[in-house]
Amino acid sequence: MRAFFAQDGERSVRVANDSRAPRRARAVWLLALMPLAWGAAPPTPETIAGQLRDAALAGHDVAYSWVSELTTRFGPRPAGSDNEHRAAEWAAARLKALGFDNVHIETFPITAWSRGSESAQLIAPISQPLVIAALGESPPTPAAGLEGDVVIFPTLAALKAAPAGSLSGKIAMVANRTVRTQDGAGYSAAVGARGDGPHEAAAHGAIAFLLRSVGTDSHRLAHTGTTRYTDGRVPVPAFALAAPDAEQLERIAALGETPRVRLFSSASYDANAHSQNVIADIKGAKRPQEIVLLAAHLDSWDQGTGAIDDGTGTAIMVAAAKLIRDLPHRPQRTVRVVLFGSEEIAQPNAPFGDFGGHSYADKHLAELPNHVLAGESDLGTERVYSLTLPPAVAKGDFADSARRVLTPLGVLFARRGEGDFGADVEPAIKAGVPGVALAQDATRYFDIHHTSDDTLDKVDRAQLDQNVAAWAALTWLAADGDLDFRSHGAAIPEPSDE
Amino acid sequence: MRAFFAQDGERSVRVANDSRAPRRARAVWLLALMPLAWGAAPPTPETIAGQLRDAALAGHDVAYSWVSELTTRFGPRPAGSDNEHRAAEWAAARLKALGFDNVHIETFPITAWSRGSESAQLIAPISQPLVIAALGESPPTPAAGLEGDVVIFPTLAALKAAPAGSLSGKIAMVANRTVRTQDGAGYSAAVGARGDGPHEAAAHGAIAFLLRSVGTDSHRLAHTGTTRYTDGRVPVPAFALAAPDAEQLERIAALGETPRVRLFSSASYDANAHSQNVIADIKGAKRPQEIVLLAAHLDSWDQGTGAIDDGTGTAIMVAAAKLIRDLPHRPQRTVRVVLFGSEEIAQPNAPFGDFGGHSYADKHLAELPNHVLAGESDLGTERVYSLTLPPAVAKGDFADSARRVLTPLGVLFARRGEGDFGADVEPAIKAGVPGVALAQDATRYFDIHHTSDDTLDKVDRAQLDQNVAAWAALTWLAADGDLDFRSHGAAIPEPSDE
Repeated sequence: MRAFFAQDGERSVRVANDSRAPRRARAVWLLALMPLAWGAAPPTPETIAGQLRDAALAGHDVAYSWVSELTTRFGPRPAGSDNEHRAAEWAAARLKALGFDNVHIETFPITAWSRGSESAQLIAPISQPLVIAALGESPPTPAAGLEGDVVIFPTLAALKAAPAGSLSGKIAMVANRTVRTQDGAGYSAAVGARGDGPHEAAAHGAIAFLLRSVGTDSHRLAHTGTTRYTDGRVPVPAFALAAPDAEQLERIAALGETPRVRLFSSASYDANAHSQNVIADIKGAKRPQEIVLLAAHLDSWDQGTGAIDDGTGTAIMVAAAKLIRDLPHRPQRTVRVVLFGSEEIAQPNAPFGDFGGHSYADKHLAELPNHVLAGESDLGTERVYSLTLPPAVAKGDFADSARRVLTPLGVLFARRGEGDFGADVEPAIKAGVPGVALAQDATRYFDIHHTSDDTLDKVDRAQLDQNVAAWAALTWLAADGDLDFRSHGAAIPEPSDE
Repeated sequence: MRAFFAQDGERSVRVANDSRAPRRARAVWLLALMPLAWGAAPPTPETIAGQLRDAALAGHDVAYSWVSELTTRFGPRPAGSDNEHRAAEWAAARLKALGFDNVHIETFPITAWSRGSESAQLIAPISQPLVIAALGESPPTPAAGLEGDVVIFPTLAALKAAPAGSLSGKIAMVANRTVRTQDGAGYSAAVGARGDGPHEAAAHGAIAFLLRSVGTDSHRLAHTGTTRYTDGRVPVPAFALAAPDAEQLERIAALGETPRVRLFSSASYDANAHSQNVIADIKGAKRPQEIVLLAAHLDSWDQGTGAIDDGTGTAIMVAAAKLIRDLPHRPQRTVRVVLFGSEEIAQPNAPFGDFGGHSYADKHLAELPNHVLAGESDLGTERVYSLTLPPAVAKGDFADSARRVLTPLGVLFARRGEGDFGADVEPAIKAGVPGVALAQDATRYFDIHHTSDDTLDKVDRAQLDQNVAAWAALTWLAADGDLDFRSHGAAIPEPSDE
C-alpha cells in the first residue's frame, strides 16, 4: 500500500489544492498519508476501500498515462480499424505488464464502416461551406454528390407527420435542440432522431437526411454517432450538421429563402471486419469463480482520438483495478476488467448494436450466473456525483459502508434506480447480472461527445482521479465480501413513485 | 431622440438586468427615460453624448440585425468573392435606406486567394486525420499532395537558427503557444511566425510549413490568417494546425517517433479580382469638410461567416452613426462610416496588405488633412474597456467630458497611447490623421478569430450594445465641436515612462 503514497508529491499537492475536490475528501486524504499498522489488526474492507480511494486521489499515475498513451499511440480507433486492433494488442500487453491475470483477447466478426471523404456546401441563396459529419453507417452519396432543397422540421415527430411523398427529391432536416442536463437526459431526448431520421426521411421521399448535431455546444463541429439499419440498410445518406450551420439554415429559411445544399460522402462498409474484447482479471483469493465486472470500451469514433469516449473510461477501470492488484492481498472474488470493442457502431443484423457487449455475453454465458456485479465507465472525464446500487442492496450494511467511503468524494446516493448502466454491460445485465452505476456529471460531456474535439487536452486529471477513487473503493467493497447482489430483488430496478 | 426610447421595452429590461452592465450605466439610462425639454436650453454636446450612450444601451436594434442579416445573407465574404461584392451592394443600399448621405462604393483591384479543398493526414506512426487550414495566400500543394516527416520547432527563432539545408524534404513546424491576454498582446507575440514561417521554412529546404494555430482555444479548429509574400510569392504551402493536433504531433515526437504527414491543398490566386470600400456620411451642419472617420471591414475569412471579424465592427459603427443620424440636428462635422474591403489578405506587391485602407488613403489623399479623427472597430463583440485619445487631447476639457460620458460604461482611460489603431485606418493615421482607440476585451477573442467558428451565435447582444454606446457618445463629442485633435502633439503617440 505504501507505494501508492510515496509517488509524485508535487502532483498530490496539486490535487489537494484543487478547489473542486470536496473539503472532506482532502482531509481524509491527508489522514491517509499517516503510517498504517498493517500487522496489527486485519483492516476491514471499508478501511481498505478508503485507502484505495485516498491513494487514487493522491495522484496514482496509471489513469492519465493510460489515456495519454492510448490516444497518442493509436489516435482514432473506429471499430474494425487497424488502430483499434493495435490498441487492443497494446492494451493486452500493458495489462500483462501491470500484473493482471488471464489477459487475453476475444475476437468477433463485425460489419465495419469507414467515413471516407465528405463535404457539404450551401449553394443557394449564397455559397458557404457547411460543417457536417456522416452519421455512422450512412451510405455514401453518388460519386458526383447530391443536391437538394432543404426542408426543415423542428422535431422528428414533425418529419413523421409530413404528408407522404412531400419530400420527394428534397433533403429532410430535423433541427431539434439538445438540452443541457447533468444526467444526460437531454441527450436521450434528442438522440432518437439520429436513429430513426434516415428511415423517416426516405419513407417520405427525401434523398438525404440532415440532423442538427445531438450536442450542447455551439462550435463548427458536427457530432456523429450511429444511426440504425432498417431491413439491413440505412436508406439514404445521413449527416449531422454543426449547430451554427443548422441555425444558419433556419435563419435563411426565416428570411423566406430556400436553402439548397450539395452533399458528398464516400463512406463504405466492410462486412468482413473484426473487432475484439480485451479481458484481464485479478483472480479472487477465495471465490475466484465469482466475478465483479468493470467495463469500458476501446473503440472510438473516427474524427477525434476517443479521449473522453471512452479512453478515460478504460483508464479509470484499469487504474482502479491496478490499485486493487497492488494491495498486499487479493480480494475474495475475481475483479475482471473488460475493454470492449465495437461499442459505437450499429450492426446490420440482430442484435444490431453494442457488439462487444453481445459477444462477451454470448461467449461467457455459462459464467454470467457467477457475475456478481457489473459496472461501466463511459461518460467522459468529469466527476462521479451519484451512485445507484442494485435494489437488493440499496439499503443495509453494504450501502452504509459504500456511503461512508464515497460521500467524501462528493457522491450522492440516487433516490431511485436508473435503468441505463451502459451499452457494454447491457447484454449481461439483461441476462440477470446486477448492475451498479457511478454516474458522472454530464453537463459538459455532450459539448464534445462524438466530435473531432474528443482529444486528450479535454481530460481533467483531478476529476479523472476522482473517478478512479470511486471505482476502486466500490469495487473492493463488492469484491472482498460474499454479498449476493441479486438475492433481494430484480436485477433491473423498477421505477418507484418516490 | 425620443424614438430611441419608445422601442422594445422587453429588450431594455433585459439589458438593465444584465449583471455585466455597470451599475451606474443602468442608473443613467433610467434617467434618460425622463422627458427632456428640448425647447428650453440647448443641450451641451456632453448631454447629447450621454443620451446617445443610453439609447444604445436601451437596446437600439440596428447593430444586431445588421450583423445577423450580413452573416446570414452573405455568409463568408473573402476579399474579391461574389459574397463580398454582394455584401457591399447590400450594405450600400441599407445605408441609403438608413438615411446616410453620399453613400457610394469605391472599387479597387486586388489579387484574390481561394482556399479550394484541403486535407491533412498523419500517416506514420499511425493514421489520423489532422485539422488544418491553409494560411491565406498559401500556394497549393501538387495535385497528388505532398508528404514529409515533420520537424518541430518550439519557436520561429528556433526555426531560423536551424542549420542551412537541414530541413531538406521535410515539413517544418513551429509549435509556439499563443498566450491569453486581455489586450491581445499574446496574439501580437505569436503572429510573427505566421508571416515569416513559410519563408524561413523554404530557406532551410523544407517542402511545407505547419504552424500551431495562433489562437487561445483548444478545439479541433484551425486558425487561418494571412502569411506574407516574399518577392511576389509565398514559397511553400503553409498551414495552421489546430492546437490539439499540434500537441498530438509533439507527444508523438516525445515518444521517440517521427510524425509523417500528408498535405493537400488546391488553393488558387486570381490576379484580376477586385474589392471595394463602402462609404456613407452624415454630412456636418457647420464644417462638412471636416471628417470624423469610423472604420470597420466587410470582408472576412472564408471558413466562418465573419460575425465577430468583422461583422460586429461594421454593425457597431453603422449603429453608432445611425443613432447620430436620427438626432433632431446634425453634428457640426461630418461623420463618415467606411466599411472597408480586403482587410484580411496580403497583396503580392507594395504596400502588401490592408488594401481597402490603402485604397481609401490614396483616393482621399486631398481630404486627409481634414480628417479630424479616425477610429476602428475590429476586435469582435466583447465590451470596450479602455479609451486611448490622441496625445493632443489626452488631458483637458474633451478628455474630461469623454471620461464622464464613458466611465459609466466601464471604460478606463489608457495611461499611455497605443500605437495600433487598426489595419484599416493605419494608412490614414500614417498620413497624419489622429487616431482614437476604444479597446475591446480580447480575452476570448482569439479563441474564435480566423476559425470556422466565427459565426453569429458568438455575438453577445448586451456587449455589442455597449460598444455602440461608446462609439456613438465619443463620436458625437468629436463631431459636434471644433477641437483640433492634432494641434498639441504628434498624431502617433510616443511611449511615455508612466
